[in-house]
Amino acid sequence: MEEQADRVLEGDRFAWEFVEGLTTEVGPRQAGTEAEARGREWAMNWLRQHGFENVRTEPFAMDTWVPGDIARARITEPFAQDLVVLPLGNSAATPEGGIEGELVFFRNVHELRAAPVGSLTGKIAYISHAMKPAQDGSHYGFAGPARWVGAGIAAQKGAIATVIKSVGTDYHRNPHTGGTTFPEGVEPIPAAAMSIPDAENVERMFARADGRQIRLGLELNPKALGETMSGNVVAEITGRNPELPPVLLACHIDSWWNSPGAFDDAAGCGIIAAAAFHVQRTGTPLRTIRVLMAGAEETGLWGSKAYSDAHIDEPIAVGLESDFGADRIWRLESNFRDSNPELHARLAKAVARFGVADSTVVATGGADLNIVRDQQGALIDLQQDGMRYFDLHHTPDDTLDKIDPVQLRQNVAVWTSVVGLLANEPRAILTGGTVPSAPPIMDQ
Amino acid sequence: MEEQADRVLEGDRFAWEFVEGLTTEVGPRQAGTEAEARGREWAMNWLRQHGFENVRTEPFAMDTWVPGDIARARITEPFAQDLVVLPLGNSAATPEGGIEGELVFFRNVHELRAAPVGSLTGKIAYISHAMKPAQDGSHYGFAGPARWVGAGIAAQKGAIATVIKSVGTDYHRNPHTGGTTFPEGVEPIPAAAMSIPDAENVERMFARADGRQIRLGLELNPKALGETMSGNVVAEITGRNPELPPVLLACHIDSWWNSPGAFDDAAGCGIIAAAAFHVQRTGTPLRTIRVLMAGAEETGLWGSKAYSDAHIDEPIAVGLESDFGADRIWRLESNFRDSNPELHARLAKAVARFGVADSTVVATGGADLNIVRDQQGALIDLQQDGMRYFDLHHTPDDTLDKIDPVQLRQNVAVWTSVVGLLANEPRAILTGGTVPSAPPIMDQ
Repeated sequence: MEEQADRVLEGDRFAWEFVEGLTTEVGPRQAGTEAEARGREWAMNWLRQHGFENVRTEPFAMDTWVPGDIARARITEPFAQDLVVLPLGNSAATPEGGIEGELVFFRNVHELRAAPVGSLTGKIAYISHAMKPAQDGSHYGFAGPARWVGAGIAAQKGAIATVIKSVGTDYHRNPHTGGTTFPEGVEPIPAAAMSIPDAENVERMFARADGRQIRLGLELNPKALGETMSGNVVAEITGRNPELPPVLLACHIDSWWNSPGAFDDAAGCGIIAAAAFHVQRTGTPLRTIRVLMAGAEETGLWGSKAYSDAHIDEPIAVGLESDFGADRIWRLESNFRDSNPELHARLAKAVARFGVADSTVVATGGADLNIVRDQQGALIDLQQDGMRYFDLHHTPDDTLDKIDPVQLRQNVAVWTSVVGLLANEPRAILTGGTVPSAPPIMDQ
Repeated sequence: MEEQADRVLEGDRFAWEFVEGLTTEVGPRQAGTEAEARGREWAMNWLRQHGFENVRTEPFAMDTWVPGDIARARITEPFAQDLVVLPLGNSAATPEGGIEGELVFFRNVHELRAAPVGSLTGKIAYISHAMKPAQDGSHYGFAGPARWVGAGIAAQKGAIATVIKSVGTDYHRNPHTGGTTFPEGVEPIPAAAMSIPDAENVERMFARADGRQIRLGLELNPKALGETMSGNVVAEITGRNPELPPVLLACHIDSWWNSPGAFDDAAGCGIIAAAAFHVQRTGTPLRTIRVLMAGAEETGLWGSKAYSDAHIDEPIAVGLESDFGADRIWRLESNFRDSNPELHARLAKAVARFGVADSTVVATGGADLNIVRDQQGALIDLQQDGMRYFDLHHTPDDTLDKIDPVQLRQNVAVWTSVVGLLANEPRAILTGGTVPSAPPIMDQ
């Protein structure tokens, strides 16, 4: 396995070719749409061509939202100019021609929460944050609520719409979309993300307003389509002993509509498929390696839930997900460091030569590993460098050119080493110990 | 002047505040529109507040084109997906609902020129290039023709539209607009720029097409408005001897509609105004310093031509323009190095301590210095670092956050040193020697 991993490090093109093919031949793959279905077909063909077995789609029904084709925002007073926005997932549409209202500034979602009920009647809430890049991506948990719950809170206080500073860390005029949710019984309102340069401009306007209202015009035409079909793509490298629980490698095949989702998450799918492929090239592994390319992750983990519902009674040996870009892996985490220290140490040793540090952080698994969390099973997180992940996350800028082939090869080499050990491990991987029950907030 | 330049280097906020104010309070300033008029008003107020004299607008008529609010492109076959485009200046509109046709690949404008007449009938020309960043920006001359003349050539060969790979060097989904021209008698066709990631994606599609047509749907709704009014903003620091020909400092106040034009050219206007202001603070200069914030540069140097037409008989001592961003100045060029070596050497010495090298390159002057070229007068080019200029040029990304305050201060310090020497120079600056007659291609 060491030799194979070294070959991967030097010259793997497998993951790259998956990402290049999917982003070029299919492009954006919004959950529940025909574009996502084309993504599944493309992935299945590709997996079959590369020797995967039992390649199939497992369909499921979901509630589908589509963004429409109008996203216009304009400061009307006092500093008239257009701004760049995109709707958030689950945003309502404005009436045709748009709405207009006073923009009310909130430094963060805590300030919004503190606003009296009714204080936003007829107004538009603007929610900021102070997100900074972090290697582990942890600022997403810090700034994310502006998007995840801001619109719902604003709606409850009477707002006619919400615009947020994009939850991201770049300086380009590409808004970061992503899902927002409205509490039970709260009618959705129009909700949009503004690019960070535009958001900073609006904040400068507030500083210069000198008592004048800042007024915003907003027009969006997204649409809730009701129930449509999505699906999970599943494929396997059959092990020598198919009776043993399989190693489950997860990613998601859908993307937001506004980019081909190279980082999020074509790369993850390419990485896990490459790892399975490279392990198989060194000889049939003991355990089956199952690849799960989940559908409809972005809009609410529909595929992850459907997979768990359908297969909860079929034990998984260990689950790993790649859904945080394609930069280098820098840290190994598991949830069996205490209970199975021998295996954890063997994994840590295998990846050390690629510059991956061991860690006491307890792995929680990626978004598409609901089944493993529901089974209270073994999890490994191969943490990828997140310093530029939130420059690209959910923006139009998530394109093939952002993938660094050198870092991608290190990533696949680490995955190949880890999956090779796990797939040839005869003993149970999780022999007790801490198991997290809460799903992670990352990558949704 | 040395002391003043040092103070500028350490702590000038003057140029920054101009750029911040104009981009925040006015934003985009498309030539010939009410937004450009608001830009003029804002600039005049600001110049008056900062002690400039004879502040005025000199109006002129121009042919005005506006971009509309629809710019949609979609590959329809075989790899269906949306692409990000923006119209080029002077583009025609498509019919409502758009057009669709086979996309024909040209590696560069030379290949397009070689295509037989009629070979593009009913088709859409795609024109690429291989522009790379260069400190002197010279690749713009190499790649620019794809935009400047590509659409006109394609139209003559029967094309129903043209899309070009954006003339730029970044990797963001922000197309680079800019003017294109159609030869006399050639009916304009729809012409758009594609973001560079999208263009590379399309080129990958051609590589994978395997005999299949690549087909593009395109919808644009720009409009030629006919004649509207624009204007040049002129302001002065009156010299001790107003009879001497003035030093003319130029920039342009208009921007493309898609950004607030922080680099192009709010920064240039801030830099020249700051230089004049700082020189004046050391004592009234011998010569008048005249600031020309030209209108309608982007769409065809309308303001530059109008200024020259109106003032051709009033000699200018020397002209300098800032219209290449706000990064550090790295090279001094003049057109009097041979004819007035003493002054050139004094200038070179004054700027050497800011890291500015002397050069034998003959200055040609910026786009708004038509009057100086028409008078065959003295020119200085303070070359700014262009390594990232074409990442931003004519894109939505040309926003305040791109300006590096440290480089901007060096820039203003160099300008202050140079303008201080020129404005206190009692002798004629151009005493003979090489005078270029062709306008530069840069910055248009």
